[in-house]
Amino acid sequence: MTNKEKPRMEVCLSPALLHLYDTRGAIVVIIDIFRATSTITAALDNGAKCVIPVASVEECIAIGASIPGSITAGERDGKVADGLEYGNSPGEYPREFIKDKTLVLTTTNGTRLLHMINGASDIIIGSFLNLDAICSYLLSHKKSVLLGCASWKDRFNLEDTLFAGAVINEVAHAFDINCDSARVARHLFDSSGGDFIGFLKDSSHYKRLSVYGLEKDMAYCATPNLHPVVPILSGREIVIR
Amino acid sequence: MTNKEKPRMEVCLSPALLHLYDTRGAIVVIIDIFRATSTITAALDNGAKCVIPVASVEECIAIGASIPGSITAGERDGKVADGLEYGNSPGEYPREFIKDKTLVLTTTNGTRLLHMINGASDIIIGSFLNLDAICSYLLSHKKSVLLGCASWKDRFNLEDTLFAGAVINEVAHAFDINCDSARVARHLFDSSGGDFIGFLKDSSHYKRLSVYGLEKDMAYCATPNLHPVVPILSGREIVIR
Repeated sequence: MTNKEKPRMEVCLSPALLHLYDTRGAIVVIIDIFRATSTITAALDNGAKCVIPVASVEECIAIGASIPGSITAGERDGKVADGLEYGNSPGEYPREFIKDKTLVLTTTNGTRLLHMINGASDIIIGSFLNLDAICSYLLSHKKSVLLGCASWKDRFNLEDTLFAGAVINEVAHAFDINCDSARVARHLFDSSGGDFIGFLKDSSHYKRLSVYGLEKDMAYCATPNLHPVVPILSGREIVIR
Repeated sequence: MTNKEKPRMEVCLSPALLHLYDTRGAIVVIIDIFRATSTITAALDNGAKCVIPVASVEECIAIGASIPGSITAGERDGKVADGLEYGNSPGEYPREFIKDKTLVLTTTNGTRLLHMINGASDIIIGSFLNLDAICSYLLSHKKSVLLGCASWKDRFNLEDTLFAGAVINEVAHAFDINCDSARVARHLFDSSGGDFIGFLKDSSHYKRLSVYGLEKDMAYCATPNLHPVVPILSGREIVIR
């Protein structure tokens, strides 16, 4: 297969750059490593019935109230948001707690990006926790791919881009990649030497969340393949098939 | 000096992200390595009276017509634009040609970014050709700095970010840097091992311009310190003081 016959793979470094990419018919991987997409992946692998991502605390409360037995969750400034029950840590959703429940989760960056995508074939949820599962999905579907970094309030961040680089490292042979954002992601992956959490300790988000004592949480989020599932958006719900 | 007492240094990876940064009172370095800021730097060091950056071919022709003896220049799709006289290559502006002349230059990415900056203390023009001169300027002025990558039609590019990394490599000790865009720029610089043009051969813009046979031009643009001047915007003109 020549390069031109391969499907295209690109990386969008921030939601503020999303308009530069054509997502029609493509698989879009939403990436919000610290911590939305990590938490969604963990909760679903631990048996959650589905995750409903919402933008605001108000919406989270309203949807939670309409679904019996659902869990409302989300943080603002590192604490459980007023009116919600749980936070945005993968460790809060072990199987014995989350199994068969609906998790209504409000996050800022990841949810916003997810709701901005138009016309995609599939919107799937990527994190180090399901790295290989995501790569297998992309390799088997043979469609154009946009790796979408949720970033932090539209600012480029290292952790989401590093994950994009980890994906590219595994699947580059099967895609046509001519995108400097993909190249920089790959360079970050190479620079990390595979020590993701060590590499990410010098990142803005790590420093921000460390203030709240979330180092163990972040180390968990940077561990590959603990939850080998592919969460996919179906209507308003994120599910595993 | 503690970190908090140092002036802030940040990197803006694309004009589409400029709204995230506060440029009031800051020094903004405009970076458009291939090739606007390289050409501006070379022309001024070679004796040009000033460079007037303009957004459109029409504006270039109109301003050129109003200034006796001026040169109108700019490219579209790798060729001198219709109605203009010269291109966007530093090699076109040797001293014997450009000395004491006004260069009216239309470029897309660099000019657009330059005109988007509001309230900056100084807007200066950075390229590998004047790397050390830019670093000396930043170190001596002790103000907040935004390294502004012109990018390519708002898309992240390697060459501008690599230059930002080269600056950071020289001046980081004197600035408070807590910005993942600055960190990724520094990682790119480290990855390049100092072989800038070798590193940039795997970039979208290099591949695009190679189609027009501009490899030598780009190698020139990636050579440090051939033109050790600091071009600065003064009104509508870019000059050296």
